[in-house]
Amino acid sequence: MQTTRLRRFLSGSQSRFPIHHFSSSPSPPPVEPTPSSHSPPLLSIGHVLRFSRRFMDQDVARFAEVTGDYNPVHLDSEFATSVGGFDRGRVVHGMLVASLFPSIIASNFPGAVYVSQDLKFKLPVYIGDEVAAEVQAISIRQIKKRFIVKLTTKCFTNEVHPVVDGEAIAVLPTLNLMK
Amino acid sequence: MQTTRLRRFLSGSQSRFPIHHFSSSPSPPPVEPTPSSHSPPLLSIGHVLRFSRRFMDQDVARFAEVTGDYNPVHLDSEFATSVGGFDRGRVVHGMLVASLFPSIIASNFPGAVYVSQDLKFKLPVYIGDEVAAEVQAISIRQIKKRFIVKLTTKCFTNEVHPVVDGEAIAVLPTLNLMK
Repeated sequence: MQTTRLRRFLSGSQSRFPIHHFSSSPSPPPVEPTPSSHSPPLLSIGHVLRFSRRFMDQDVARFAEVTGDYNPVHLDSEFATSVGGFDRGRVVHGMLVASLFPSIIASNFPGAVYVSQDLKFKLPVYIGDEVAAEVQAISIRQIKKRFIVKLTTKCFTNEVHPVVDGEAIAVLPTLNLMK
Repeated sequence: MQTTRLRRFLSGSQSRFPIHHFSSSPSPPPVEPTPSSHSPPLLSIGHVLRFSRRFMDQDVARFAEVTGDYNPVHLDSEFATSVGGFDRGRVVHGMLVASLFPSIIASNFPGAVYVSQDLKFKLPVYIGDEVAAEVQAISIRQIKKRFIVKLTTKCFTNEVHPVVDGEAIAVLPTLNLMK
């Protein structure tokens, strides 16, 4: 993705201390020692995984094509302002922004399966806005060889304004984080 | 969308009688008379709007590209079965399937703005499955010149199995349905 700026920050390999703020976390929280220097980092409660991305014209146009959602609030600036009420013009599809969540989960846990996702679209995301998405593990339950993980899912623009908020549940084949 | 088979069924122009089943509704419910033959049909409680679509290889590949979600359960049949546990191989991204909901709403109400969407992914959607999506208005509230509409949002495969279930809230600029 040429337009994707991937900046994943992992809040310590086995830390139980969540990081709540994007720009003001001065340093990583204390990291518990791993059993062996060769052990992969494991997802634990409190872990935060993040991506940042800027959605551009082409991303929105391609998302409209693949989903069939040609709502002019995404494609026509004048319409977006006059009918949609968006003062800065065209906005990114909410579901495109929300797709950052399964994308973060899948990039860390290939084979993850989504069970549920609640989404509240609190503020518009305009074309070109920097969107920082974060998912945080809030519960982990093991059933046989799989892990059912509940996560908070949030997006911010300009690292300040909450734009999308919600929760997700995913089934992971492992808690081993991809490095 | 070459791969989109758009089959929109509108359950009567001003009917208050919801249609719950896809294949077994023998005939449209009674339609209340419109004030004038030139009046556009209006969305009312109980209305059901539907789309059907089959997601193919190319759709899933393009969705992966635009969202950055390269989870191999969508792209690698052997992995989808062995790690994801999907007996028929690769599955469609849940968020691509769920994008049918805002797509249905936007195609009927250009300028609609999504407020929230809850999603439960109950069963996998495999590449090539026929997916029937329906949204049904369950409450409508007017605030000034806009309408806040709550809808149930459901998808079925083969017109029988519920695969995605949830609710959405959208702000509509009008209740006039596009014909």
